[in-house]
Amino acid sequence: MARWGGQAHPAMQVPSPSAREAASMYGTAVAVFLVILVAALQGSAPPESPFPYRIPLDPEGTLELSWNVSYVQETVHFQLLVRELKAGVLFGMSDRGELENADLVVLWTDGDSAYFGDAWSDRKGRIHLDAQQDYQLLRAQRTREGLSLLFKRPFGTCDPKDYLIEDGTVHLVYGILEEPFQSLEAINVSSLQTGLQRVQLLKPNISVPALPSDTRTMEIRAPDVLVPGQETTYWCHITELPNGFSRHHIVMYEPIVTEGNEALVHHMEVFQCAAEFESFPRFSGPCDSKMKPERLNYCRHVLAAWALGAKAFYYPEEAGLAFGGPGSSRFLRLEVHYHNPLKIKGRRDSSGIRLYYTATLRRFDAGIMELGLVYTPVMAIPPQETAFVLTGYCTDKCTQLALPPSGIHIFASQLHTHLTGREAVTVLARDGREKEVVNRDGHYSPHFQEIRMLKKIVSVRPGDVLITSCTYNTGDRTLATVGGFGILEEMCVNYVHYYPLTQLELCKSAVDPGFLQKYFHLVNRFNSEEVCTCPQASVPEQFASVPWNSFNRQVLKALYGFAPISMHCNKSSAVRFQGEWNLQPLPEIISKLEEPTRHCPASRGQSPSGPTMVSIGGRKG
Amino acid sequence: MARWGGQAHPAMQVPSPSAREAASMYGTAVAVFLVILVAALQGSAPPESPFPYRIPLDPEGTLELSWNVSYVQETVHFQLLVRELKAGVLFGMSDRGELENADLVVLWTDGDSAYFGDAWSDRKGRIHLDAQQDYQLLRAQRTREGLSLLFKRPFGTCDPKDYLIEDGTVHLVYGILEEPFQSLEAINVSSLQTGLQRVQLLKPNISVPALPSDTRTMEIRAPDVLVPGQETTYWCHITELPNGFSRHHIVMYEPIVTEGNEALVHHMEVFQCAAEFESFPRFSGPCDSKMKPERLNYCRHVLAAWALGAKAFYYPEEAGLAFGGPGSSRFLRLEVHYHNPLKIKGRRDSSGIRLYYTATLRRFDAGIMELGLVYTPVMAIPPQETAFVLTGYCTDKCTQLALPPSGIHIFASQLHTHLTGREAVTVLARDGREKEVVNRDGHYSPHFQEIRMLKKIVSVRPGDVLITSCTYNTGDRTLATVGGFGILEEMCVNYVHYYPLTQLELCKSAVDPGFLQKYFHLVNRFNSEEVCTCPQASVPEQFASVPWNSFNRQVLKALYGFAPISMHCNKSSAVRFQGEWNLQPLPEIISKLEEPTRHCPASRGQSPSGPTMVSIGGRKG
Repeated sequence: MARWGGQAHPAMQVPSPSAREAASMYGTAVAVFLVILVAALQGSAPPESPFPYRIPLDPEGTLELSWNVSYVQETVHFQLLVRELKAGVLFGMSDRGELENADLVVLWTDGDSAYFGDAWSDRKGRIHLDAQQDYQLLRAQRTREGLSLLFKRPFGTCDPKDYLIEDGTVHLVYGILEEPFQSLEAINVSSLQTGLQRVQLLKPNISVPALPSDTRTMEIRAPDVLVPGQETTYWCHITELPNGFSRHHIVMYEPIVTEGNEALVHHMEVFQCAAEFESFPRFSGPCDSKMKPERLNYCRHVLAAWALGAKAFYYPEEAGLAFGGPGSSRFLRLEVHYHNPLKIKGRRDSSGIRLYYTATLRRFDAGIMELGLVYTPVMAIPPQETAFVLTGYCTDKCTQLALPPSGIHIFASQLHTHLTGREAVTVLARDGREKEVVNRDGHYSPHFQEIRMLKKIVSVRPGDVLITSCTYNTGDRTLATVGGFGILEEMCVNYVHYYPLTQLELCKSAVDPGFLQKYFHLVNRFNSEEVCTCPQASVPEQFASVPWNSFNRQVLKALYGFAPISMHCNKSSAVRFQGEWNLQPLPEIISKLEEPTRHCPASRGQSPSGPTMVSIGGRKG
Repeated sequence: MARWGGQAHPAMQVPSPSAREAASMYGTAVAVFLVILVAALQGSAPPESPFPYRIPLDPEGTLELSWNVSYVQETVHFQLLVRELKAGVLFGMSDRGELENADLVVLWTDGDSAYFGDAWSDRKGRIHLDAQQDYQLLRAQRTREGLSLLFKRPFGTCDPKDYLIEDGTVHLVYGILEEPFQSLEAINVSSLQTGLQRVQLLKPNISVPALPSDTRTMEIRAPDVLVPGQETTYWCHITELPNGFSRHHIVMYEPIVTEGNEALVHHMEVFQCAAEFESFPRFSGPCDSKMKPERLNYCRHVLAAWALGAKAFYYPEEAGLAFGGPGSSRFLRLEVHYHNPLKIKGRRDSSGIRLYYTATLRRFDAGIMELGLVYTPVMAIPPQETAFVLTGYCTDKCTQLALPPSGIHIFASQLHTHLTGREAVTVLARDGREKEVVNRDGHYSPHFQEIRMLKKIVSVRPGDVLITSCTYNTGDRTLATVGGFGILEEMCVNYVHYYPLTQLELCKSAVDPGFLQKYFHLVNRFNSEEVCTCPQASVPEQFASVPWNSFNRQVLKALYGFAPISMHCNKSSAVRFQGEWNLQPLPEIISKLEEPTRHCPASRGQSPSGPTMVSIGGRKG
């Protein structure tokens, strides 16, 4: 085995790990390794184009990941920059960012030789080599910045130990090897410096629309808010557009988060007030304050929404969000949700949203619609559930009434839950058959609520049904988690961005409250304990007194899948469309979308079944 | 490619199917093929020992299967004799004997060449070659009787298209190819002569105990019964042992089914009457006849039980079933269950059971115990369920009371349901943890109710719990199927054969009837339709009036998994052991048995990825 310095050399040589002994004649273990790698260039050459996406993995930025996505090859190319290589590095993916049960690539050394291999960690954090090597090393290069590893992996490998790269959130994980290990099996992730980073790996391959040349900006901020020392605050701040501000299109917006408050500002929304009122009182305070003027409840037309983890938001080139001009209120309400679990007092914040707008109106007005569940405690999750599903409906009756004959086109979506949300999905159904997924995140995290551009615009016709389901994990709770605004309560919402604009702003549902009372009554009949059904008891109190045995859990589940619903089919001004919206039947679904079948190749003999061995030159650090 | 006649020659030559064109120079399609095969002898040589198991597949016996089982290699060797080969044959396995979604080996010809391959049929009956070839052809031989194919297959192949050979019933399927097919894909099973045969493929490798030299036989038959022209008849017939018949051990018994009545006789049992009565009246008639003497209800101690599909039954060498002698009644009741769906009138039957017994008593008395569900309509299955599970318990309280300190040893088991049963299993739990499977049949058929010797004797200690679950398919029913004796009602029973004998004959449960009434009340509250809960309504009538929406189904399921049970912890004489057996809590299970994990080899490249091509000599028939 030869040693090379500097540039990597392609070679066809892929020795088996048993060649390790032969390599032990070279050098001894040293504190710092300069790794010069030789890897077999297998398959396609690394892509010519630069990597469009880049993210630091650890807080210090020692590890930096760049990547691109080929939807044709169903492959992700990764470039991992390791700035200060010690004895190796772990990189991979796992369900929710844990280092156990993770799908990993490992670059490690036993002190003599270095290896690159596809591995996995078991539930105890022990690392094992994959029987099938699916991460394929394409190039290893020492650069001025550090060691750069280029490798690729298919979205799906058919190896049951491997993570399936899907749309939505991917929890990337990393670990730093500080010293050599005699074997991969000797590594346990619990003894390493590790961490996670959430990212949407499969970014849609749509280009950022160019901003018009006459783009101007406007900052909507609540200046110098003294953040209350309580866990949950929704701060309401009224601001107004300049006098005579004509009709414009918002074409982009981005968050402005006050430095140091990144963890405090949970989400922000800009609402436009109702046009029927000449003016709105100035107010800056908690939205649930008794001092809040009643009229501010008429400021509910969403202009912009941002949540933790999201970046700038661009409208498609054919659409913009209208604001200003006649028939539109000059008054805006900024709502900032502060999440302050440590109840820090005295913190000042001036966060808000910067709007980019143009006077050259685009072809379509865009809008935002809320799908999912009404914020009401009648929708609840029992404690100690690891995957409890709640579903909200936008019914055919509502879309029939509220959508234009040509339908609407959804181009972006932001899934939203509070802390126990683990998965979220909206599916479109037509004539009782599920047709397509609007947006799905199987690894949803409440800490990473991006507004995501859809890979493919979804058209919704009058009479279609939109079904939004969220999966919750209440494994760490002892009482039921009810629906509501508090961060310890839950939501299941999909904010869909669409055009052309309609009057429909809210299309959500909840179980009929009368049927929920029948449930509490039933719980009383079947259980020796009494559930508080006295008239003064609130629904959260009733849920709190349910003994959560298997029967009460399963019957609640059955109730939510059976009982009629109460629909919110609402216009911008918190006014329902005309019609009967209580005691509505659940939409009937006669055919479900099938899971995509992954065709696993019969023979997979292309990749080496062991790790790729790479020669190492040791230099004292 | 050379042609060989007569004996097969081993060869390493395994051409790929693309060599088919090259073969087309030989001969043309003919009506009858004499197939002379050349197959690569791969892996181990065919076993030296003859095949211990043999069964005809089709009613005419054209196809005959012999097999043996290697538990060490986890492999079954098959020898398929094809007496009159036409253009090929299909053989395989499927969930319930259907030719669709089946795992198949196919011997077929395109008129020029012949192929042997591992294939599968899709849900439309189209045949496809498996990506992975797991049926391995070992030898093909023309014998005087016909073509003999020897091939083997592992129990599990890790190919998702393959059937997993497990304990319990296996539905073998076959099909006859009458003419050549240009390709495998051109075959559709719907156009072929096909059929099924049920068999326990994985026979336990225990030898049949030798019968003692002093073995004598006795036939217990109801002579010349005029079978009633109704669907279900339980015929009761009283017979008696000779005067002064001393204590003997039954060591074996076998059915005697009157020729021509094989489909009519559903199951038969021989009961011994209670010793406390000096004599029992003679009777031969329907068990539910008003003429049946009351006293016959005291003939409930099971001596022998046989059901459709079973063969002779042998006791282990250390045990026998005692009968005769002092303290034991001379009177026996034979019960024959006639299943007569065509309501044939005038049929005569003299079926019964032949007992083989010895005066040389073995070390232990054996017994039969009934586990599972009480025969009561409170346990019901909603219509249109494809896999509804009912569970019966033998509780710790009952085993604590009724079993000897050293426990009992179960050596055989007969699972029993009526027509909608699809799976059945009994699991032993100790201290709240599932410990082992007593008997499981994942492809259970009510038409094949063998008494099966267990592969491993299961010891049950006082305080253990025995959980018997049956899975039902009521997809073709419009009303609920309730528990009961009728063939259209359901049972979930495991007759376990054990030693040493105890007083415990029945250890079964059913949901508490009071909780079921709460369920009917709840159904009334939640549904617009009224369920008949008037005092005169019977439970079957109440079930018949339930509207089977998702809620009522799921709540019934939840009820059965939650409500307290009523236990039958009964001695031989239909008398309960002393104690409180109503409103008993369901046994709590804190840890379930894990599914055995199949280790799928990482590289499977040993078997060819295409079919084995075999040269064919065509001769005009």
